[in-house]
Amino acid sequence: MAESCQLLVHNAAAIVDWSADNQTYTALAAKDGKVVALGDSREILANWKPKQTMDAHGGLVVPGLIDAHTHPVFVVGRAEEFDWRAQGVDYLEIAQRGGGILSSVRHVRAASAEELLFHVRRHFQGMRQHGTTALEAKSGYGLSVESELASLKAIQAAADEEGMQVSATFLGGHMIPQEYREQPEDYVDLLCKEMLPAVVEQGIAQAADVFIEEGAFSLVQARRFATCALEHGLQLRIHADQFHELGGVQMAVELGAQSVDHLEALSDSGLEALALSGQTFAGLLPTVPHFLRQKQDAPARKLLQAGVPYFVATDFNPGSSYTPSLPEAAHFARIRLNLTAEEALWGMTEGAAKSLGWSQKGHLRPGADADLLILDLPDLFHFGYAFGENPVRAMVIGGEPLACSS
Amino acid sequence: MAESCQLLVHNAAAIVDWSADNQTYTALAAKDGKVVALGDSREILANWKPKQTMDAHGGLVVPGLIDAHTHPVFVVGRAEEFDWRAQGVDYLEIAQRGGGILSSVRHVRAASAEELLFHVRRHFQGMRQHGTTALEAKSGYGLSVESELASLKAIQAAADEEGMQVSATFLGGHMIPQEYREQPEDYVDLLCKEMLPAVVEQGIAQAADVFIEEGAFSLVQARRFATCALEHGLQLRIHADQFHELGGVQMAVELGAQSVDHLEALSDSGLEALALSGQTFAGLLPTVPHFLRQKQDAPARKLLQAGVPYFVATDFNPGSSYTPSLPEAAHFARIRLNLTAEEALWGMTEGAAKSLGWSQKGHLRPGADADLLILDLPDLFHFGYAFGENPVRAMVIGGEPLACSS
Repeated sequence: MAESCQLLVHNAAAIVDWSADNQTYTALAAKDGKVVALGDSREILANWKPKQTMDAHGGLVVPGLIDAHTHPVFVVGRAEEFDWRAQGVDYLEIAQRGGGILSSVRHVRAASAEELLFHVRRHFQGMRQHGTTALEAKSGYGLSVESELASLKAIQAAADEEGMQVSATFLGGHMIPQEYREQPEDYVDLLCKEMLPAVVEQGIAQAADVFIEEGAFSLVQARRFATCALEHGLQLRIHADQFHELGGVQMAVELGAQSVDHLEALSDSGLEALALSGQTFAGLLPTVPHFLRQKQDAPARKLLQAGVPYFVATDFNPGSSYTPSLPEAAHFARIRLNLTAEEALWGMTEGAAKSLGWSQKGHLRPGADADLLILDLPDLFHFGYAFGENPVRAMVIGGEPLACSS
Repeated sequence: MAESCQLLVHNAAAIVDWSADNQTYTALAAKDGKVVALGDSREILANWKPKQTMDAHGGLVVPGLIDAHTHPVFVVGRAEEFDWRAQGVDYLEIAQRGGGILSSVRHVRAASAEELLFHVRRHFQGMRQHGTTALEAKSGYGLSVESELASLKAIQAAADEEGMQVSATFLGGHMIPQEYREQPEDYVDLLCKEMLPAVVEQGIAQAADVFIEEGAFSLVQARRFATCALEHGLQLRIHADQFHELGGVQMAVELGAQSVDHLEALSDSGLEALALSGQTFAGLLPTVPHFLRQKQDAPARKLLQAGVPYFVATDFNPGSSYTPSLPEAAHFARIRLNLTAEEALWGMTEGAAKSLGWSQKGHLRPGADADLLILDLPDLFHFGYAFGENPVRAMVIGGEPLACSS
């Protein structure tokens, strides 16, 4: 007798479930929002009686993509700076013209709660259209008590409205805001004594983040903020070793951070610290050096060879990685980091989920959340091969098919 | 009295018409497939009585994109080679494993006419979805009389079926096929004595193309083929200076070619030849060095400064640029070639059209073909800023709106 279930997907080229059994499945059954069975199409069709059936028409089925590093709380892209740079205008002059990250801060501070919600929803929709079914979202263009709280509330409200699973990260430590330029320590005080307590009291963030870099936060300032965040019960996700190695990786490992992201300037000792930890994920963001015209990439193959857990994310933001698409990030992971299609996909499914503590997501083994994509690809080799093109043909979240506009 | 017309588009952020008058228009009227008026929305709405009206909702209106260098006659992407390269397998070993361009030749030779038509249509649809309204399409994965003719016929049939304006190029000189490896001169004989006459007799190509490169065709072989092509009344579009400077640019200029494409290895003397010619277009293909992980790009800024006419294209093909998207190519033109948004867009509209001899296309001045896009962009600065994302919201060809699935 066939057992009833919520959804049956069949006729896939293959289902990437990340089980270790090396079997190729072509069909899947979901019940109560969870994967309950995998098998070949004939077997699953015979054993299950679904409310809804989806024919994958020979497409590839993969777990819903998870973007573990995004900055969606912004108002507008900084596109004009791009043309300035093409004409040889340097970073300093761009800042003098009112460009750069503090330009995004001005826009976010000037936006109403409704406007912020509108833009965060729009960005979530763009990401979902390209296959993202769950994500991490950072604040960090507010840099004041009021505007950081507003940013995190916009993330929460947008997640609710869009039915998107989101882990929010308080990135008060993104940059020293203009009004604290001469007294950066006072801003760290503000972060620790006012912003962190308010964020935690309102329960609107799961993690805290700080950008350790020349022109942003020193290692000492970052450690103070990170320690406060831990005392307040937040997880840590850290921006480090993007342009300069300032010891942020070692600090992140020492403090048990969930992840340390960027790593284009990672040294061998930083790599060793990550390998010894085995807990702190390396956040690989291969679209960023592309967008910033940097030569140097994170030493991804060395990290993988050393067994460091990793994820691959878009770093979606208005100034240094203006793409909502994880399939596009996979392309850059293959081109720039020499990851295989399988490694790239793992990094934006199971790797991303693990880094966020989501054991039921990022894979399709029985018991997993039934979040999945049907891709217009003949095989896994083609994942991240095309660029500028969206391979998502259909999407399922919690066992429910979603209409796809792309 | 309002005059009747076919279509009225209004409420644009701006219309990029490439007129020299520096006016910003927000509305346009089309009649009998042609642009008849530009103005502000109030003025155009008052003066014209259209059969159909399109509200651009504040999006940017640009001429339909024109892809002046594509290879759409292939069966399948060469994605597995990508993973092999990531694992350090070199070019030679890939060829030994049966990969590379001759692998695409095997697939095309084995395909039936119906299969070829299916794939070319699929590729045209993908390009159109990303804003391409007219294009140049090359054969070149047949490399036999039968299979080159079949490729060109598939281009013609797909153009008819899809209602796509296509200029076909006979690229018999793409590579020496396996069976002529030891007697390349015999293949040049075949090209000149059998293939060119047959192509011209059937009237299925407007131009001929040859790849001048180590491992492909020597300058002497290429000149022989190009001279035969000219004698048969075909235009020339030439692949040259991609990896090595072998004199192909100078030859292309001397023979009055429409374009010479790639140019990553262009020398100052090649640049001078192009600048002196003023007729032969530089074909810029910025996605290719990205896809091949090459450091060197074409010296685009020098070419523009020297007044060389140019276009920007995708080089859509299965092995070295797997993207159907001109907006994506614009992103790479901005990132890698330091073109401004305006320069990139000109190169895939008016520049591309001029290189193909299409004076009515590529711009929206009165009298132009009413081929246009409504883009989901607030201004021209944002064209090519995002990547991995399709900005096309709606499309008009010959004054008729097309349903857009993206």
